[in-house]
Amino acid sequence: MKRRRAGYPINAESLLPMKEMTIRKYPAFLPLAALCALSVFAQETQMTKHNLMPIPASVRFNPGRLAIAASFAVTAPGHNDARLQSAIDRAVRRLEARTGIAFARGLESDPAKAALLIQCQGPGRSVPSLDEDESYSLEVTNSQARLSAATVVGALRGLETFLQLLGSDKDGYFIPAVSIQDKPRFPWRGLLIDIGRHWQPMEVIKRNLDGMAAVKINVLHLHITEDQGFRIESKKYPKLHQMGSDGNYYTQAEMREIIEYARMRGIRVVPEFDMPGHTTSWFVGHPELASKPGPYEIERRWGIMEPVMDPSNEQLYKVLDGFLGEMAALFPDAYLHIGGDEVEGKHWKENPKIQAFIQAKDLKDNHGLQAYFNQRLSQILKKHGKKMIGWDEVLHPDLPKDIVVQSWRGPQSLAEGAKKGYRGILSNGYYIDLIQPAWQHYLNDPIPENTTLSAEEQKLILGGEATMWSEWVSPETIDSRIWPRTAAIAERFWLSREVKDVDDMYRRLAVVSVQLEDVGLLHEKNPPVMMRRLLGELATREEAVESLKALIEVVEPVKGYKRGTMQNATQFTPLTRLADIARPDSPAGRKFAAAIDQFLYQDLPRSRELAREGKTTWRPDFTPMLFCAKWLNAGTQLDRLAVNVPSLSESALWAGDLMALGKIGDEALKYLMNDQSPQGEWRAAKLAQLEEIAKPKAAVEMVVVQPIKELVIAAAEQEKRKTMSAEEWKKHIKTLAAPKKPVN
Amino acid sequence: MKRRRAGYPINAESLLPMKEMTIRKYPAFLPLAALCALSVFAQETQMTKHNLMPIPASVRFNPGRLAIAASFAVTAPGHNDARLQSAIDRAVRRLEARTGIAFARGLESDPAKAALLIQCQGPGRSVPSLDEDESYSLEVTNSQARLSAATVVGALRGLETFLQLLGSDKDGYFIPAVSIQDKPRFPWRGLLIDIGRHWQPMEVIKRNLDGMAAVKINVLHLHITEDQGFRIESKKYPKLHQMGSDGNYYTQAEMREIIEYARMRGIRVVPEFDMPGHTTSWFVGHPELASKPGPYEIERRWGIMEPVMDPSNEQLYKVLDGFLGEMAALFPDAYLHIGGDEVEGKHWKENPKIQAFIQAKDLKDNHGLQAYFNQRLSQILKKHGKKMIGWDEVLHPDLPKDIVVQSWRGPQSLAEGAKKGYRGILSNGYYIDLIQPAWQHYLNDPIPENTTLSAEEQKLILGGEATMWSEWVSPETIDSRIWPRTAAIAERFWLSREVKDVDDMYRRLAVVSVQLEDVGLLHEKNPPVMMRRLLGELATREEAVESLKALIEVVEPVKGYKRGTMQNATQFTPLTRLADIARPDSPAGRKFAAAIDQFLYQDLPRSRELAREGKTTWRPDFTPMLFCAKWLNAGTQLDRLAVNVPSLSESALWAGDLMALGKIGDEALKYLMNDQSPQGEWRAAKLAQLEEIAKPKAAVEMVVVQPIKELVIAAAEQEKRKTMSAEEWKKHIKTLAAPKKPVN
Repeated sequence: MKRRRAGYPINAESLLPMKEMTIRKYPAFLPLAALCALSVFAQETQMTKHNLMPIPASVRFNPGRLAIAASFAVTAPGHNDARLQSAIDRAVRRLEARTGIAFARGLESDPAKAALLIQCQGPGRSVPSLDEDESYSLEVTNSQARLSAATVVGALRGLETFLQLLGSDKDGYFIPAVSIQDKPRFPWRGLLIDIGRHWQPMEVIKRNLDGMAAVKINVLHLHITEDQGFRIESKKYPKLHQMGSDGNYYTQAEMREIIEYARMRGIRVVPEFDMPGHTTSWFVGHPELASKPGPYEIERRWGIMEPVMDPSNEQLYKVLDGFLGEMAALFPDAYLHIGGDEVEGKHWKENPKIQAFIQAKDLKDNHGLQAYFNQRLSQILKKHGKKMIGWDEVLHPDLPKDIVVQSWRGPQSLAEGAKKGYRGILSNGYYIDLIQPAWQHYLNDPIPENTTLSAEEQKLILGGEATMWSEWVSPETIDSRIWPRTAAIAERFWLSREVKDVDDMYRRLAVVSVQLEDVGLLHEKNPPVMMRRLLGELATREEAVESLKALIEVVEPVKGYKRGTMQNATQFTPLTRLADIARPDSPAGRKFAAAIDQFLYQDLPRSRELAREGKTTWRPDFTPMLFCAKWLNAGTQLDRLAVNVPSLSESALWAGDLMALGKIGDEALKYLMNDQSPQGEWRAAKLAQLEEIAKPKAAVEMVVVQPIKELVIAAAEQEKRKTMSAEEWKKHIKTLAAPKKPVN
Repeated sequence: MKRRRAGYPINAESLLPMKEMTIRKYPAFLPLAALCALSVFAQETQMTKHNLMPIPASVRFNPGRLAIAASFAVTAPGHNDARLQSAIDRAVRRLEARTGIAFARGLESDPAKAALLIQCQGPGRSVPSLDEDESYSLEVTNSQARLSAATVVGALRGLETFLQLLGSDKDGYFIPAVSIQDKPRFPWRGLLIDIGRHWQPMEVIKRNLDGMAAVKINVLHLHITEDQGFRIESKKYPKLHQMGSDGNYYTQAEMREIIEYARMRGIRVVPEFDMPGHTTSWFVGHPELASKPGPYEIERRWGIMEPVMDPSNEQLYKVLDGFLGEMAALFPDAYLHIGGDEVEGKHWKENPKIQAFIQAKDLKDNHGLQAYFNQRLSQILKKHGKKMIGWDEVLHPDLPKDIVVQSWRGPQSLAEGAKKGYRGILSNGYYIDLIQPAWQHYLNDPIPENTTLSAEEQKLILGGEATMWSEWVSPETIDSRIWPRTAAIAERFWLSREVKDVDDMYRRLAVVSVQLEDVGLLHEKNPPVMMRRLLGELATREEAVESLKALIEVVEPVKGYKRGTMQNATQFTPLTRLADIARPDSPAGRKFAAAIDQFLYQDLPRSRELAREGKTTWRPDFTPMLFCAKWLNAGTQLDRLAVNVPSLSESALWAGDLMALGKIGDEALKYLMNDQSPQGEWRAAKLAQLEEIAKPKAAVEMVVVQPIKELVIAAAEQEKRKTMSAEEWKKHIKTLAAPKKPVN
């Protein structure tokens, strides 16, 4: 690496304002702004911390490093096959893209010359399965990295770890010397993608499979049928997909392509056909299967719908036998998901024939009827060689013990199942469509600390699944809902619940998020495009782009199911609005909150010490001020710009708030830095204003209200600071600023 | 649109520094910075100018507008078919994405209720062809838009115009009232994509077809075979693709998918099989077709290679008859491109059998041999019902007059062909791989003003093609080389050469560039991703991202064939470097140059008048100062940051230059604004420094050297300004600053 500096005498002095210039003629802020930005670089990058996610079960860093240079080559003297070889090729291509170095194609035949030696004992299962051995070990020394695994899938997991270890310094790229023994805590680590409500084409599934493989998720749960769409070709009952999908379905050949793509990455594909509810789209072509006469249309609205299969109709089981037989042949996984959730039973109650059937069969009630239906399903699945999995509601004493229960209700419901001998996986707490921050998912555990399960019962908890329900995601936005948060969930499934350092998780997550772009994920890439689309012609003006960006950085989509109550939407509503561009878990929000913490509870107390030492000036981190200036500026601009652009009207709703936040923060900072106390009603007025700003608008909410609230209270409580220790001060302000009711 | 402002009293005063704060305690630059950014908004958006590209042949705006609201619907009472219907559906989806409004699905049956009425007379050709009628008219009034066309393809062209007309103001979205009659100037408006050198998968081709359709390009010329790859499945000679492609080829089914995708958009697909040179990849599986004994390997280097087919081998024609017969059946277009360029003939000279053949057939020389080969090819093509097209070199008196000549040599070569009666298309001047600015392509005309062709001969010039040769493009970067510049070329092919307002072209191009993202093009989207990849861990730090961005904005890849002389590369070299992220035709460069023009030749002269009027202060546009501060800052940061990141080493080469540019610009601006003259060697020293900075490094070049040079010279010539008129001053500085030799 050549670095040319000669000829350009740059020194700190040259950055200062030229003394002979008057401020009237030449604004002094430019060099100051330059200095200010430089001050941010006081914190140096810490290259010593690793960026592994999930963290391996056992990892020990040693002195030394394996250089990654143009001579890098791979050898695989043990078992090798098409699956391993193509994983090696992909890994080397990713390494090339990240380093910009072209490496040799193909394998190195001389093991001594290879930087990476892969010793794989055998192929493992030809189709990834629940009992796959995913363990591997990775020993990196100055001369070689040795990756050992019992199976190809284990080797694949190790390759991803190898890629995450890549580091660099002035001497070039390297893998640090390390000794890793790794295997997952849970065997079922899944991501559910709902392709029923909003269709997700092949490329969405493929790039997400690559993302899953990168963080060692091993199950793709495809939610294939819903009220809003029947997304798989049935050769036996073609009216199902032809009339139930708007043409948006996978042919069986395409689905085979997905399954193979997943298999190549060591990922199972578990299909879900949600029954007997969530089935409106089935009835468009086959109204005779419903509990109420047709005709039916594909559902376009969201919610829990009434249409439901008629379990008293013997013809239903004939169709299901045919259809599930087809699907059993198509999907190689041992498990098939029958859904079973949210059956309201209204149409059952309204249908005398069904009520008579319940009586005749002594099924007691709707729950009994659904259990009967599930038993019939379970026999059909057994006939076709599949094990059954379903949501909480399938739990019923009459069902065989080999079913797996997926819990949307919670760890307690899951534990109850386990006590009855059922195996289960947890999804409650991993609903990524609800826009919670990653730390909440990260601290949610399939087997919580306070579990009442015995060690033996705990073995029945197989793992968990993040769920990407798709009411509010399009192919354009889905990646930004799945990633990077799902990487934190993947770590939770892989690793002991003892590891729960949220700050370190977020630090690694930011790095992993960038790496996930290498496999084609669009979570970072699409929001700017969507902003430009909102801006239209204004997108050609940098200041317009910057001000919209400043807003979008500090808002998040509303949480939980709030969006549905704020915006009327159907399957056809374009998902191109402010709430679609805003992302969960705002990094800018975390950064600002951390900067305020630093300012209020470290810099400010420290300033007293400085004063005591006779140093009258102190120099805080400029971050809070820069943020406030940015918001004031951005809000002012948005307010002007949005006038002529209807698609900016939602953003314009926030313009005044953004200005106000900048102004309130700015005022509070000035009071604090100048050691002045605000007069009169200032505190009450500002807090009232903040309370207004905290209310969601346009289905997004502002994430920096709380730290600004702390600033305001701290400014008003200035005098008390002088009588308090740093800890007392922090506790005092945090208590006064605490939200009245818990957030979320 | 609701706009909430109440409760947030923001006025201009509140943006000013609080007077009671001292500068020591609270830096004053923040509110100043805010003010400064606001000043940019003095220029208001001009919504009155249209953003059409290509500009229609005849367009007249009228008073009034058609509102685009939720009630928007389309009707098509004339001819309708799957092609038109799916184009309508796509157009409505794009309109939805841009407005955020959900429109009705399907057609409106009552023509009176439809905002857009499409009157199409008939289907036109089932496969797009050279004589397709692409004309349409579009009449928009307050109540309806009426699009009329003789063919579906004409209607498709009109739909794109309709989308480009979308405007907005405080009352919402609308299409301005307008009367358009439109048809293309040339019938052959093409884009060549070379899939031989760097493989381009299906999604690249598809999204580019959508981009082409958006700017009314009607030919996709696929350069399918090259020394570096044979990219189409041959069922008759499977060794061709199996051994010549690394597995990167289109199956015939996939190619049919591309052709159909293109047909749906009114785009022809013309396949090129480059022969007899550029054929190394053929010989890997079929060495017997070559002029020199094998074995052959797929070529990995770039350049003109020696391997060439043996025209004296009768077996060759048997294979070509078989292969071209297959291809003729696969590609429905009337034309088939046989390449024919860059035959060196070295292997012909070295082969006594071939030399004997030349003598026996009285072919004189290699050129005669190639003409013989082309004649044989022409017979084969005739047999399979195809017309032949080839590069300049195919021109030979023995060839039939119905061939089309594609000129890489230039308009003169093209004109020579026309004078001999050959039809032709121009590609010289449209080589988008050479990284020239859009205006150069835009002002290049297939029939230049000074043409010597008669009106009759001019009719033989069918149009032109932009050529995306792929030595230096990957699927990740190709869009940024094709777009947006190709939109300017598309306009050149569509429109009279009289329309050549470069400034207006760039204004519209910026808007179209953003719109092209709507069809999935990645020219704006990918560079930030590639920057983050270079930055690695640093990508999580905003200041690192911003400083790399500041560099990349003001560099362009080196022009012409210079990159090959600066960087050693093969087909395997990762295209992830600085030169791959940098883009042609830097908008920031244009913006800075315009700002310096404004400052030096308008604001500065105007300041004298102000002084004369007794106004001692003047307030220039801050843009030049902000740029300089940004570069100084970014250079300083890059210099620090790059130390530990090898992939930033190329960027680090520019860090000192960036600092120096910022500093030189800053100094010159200060001299000029304070009416001071630099002392001693300043001018000479700075000009020498700029000359160094102007030299390319890391295969990119700096675009802002010239305006900074003008600043330096203007600062040094200060005194003379006082004796000159504004025009004299401008001429004086421009003359002194003129580059010694023309750029490019």
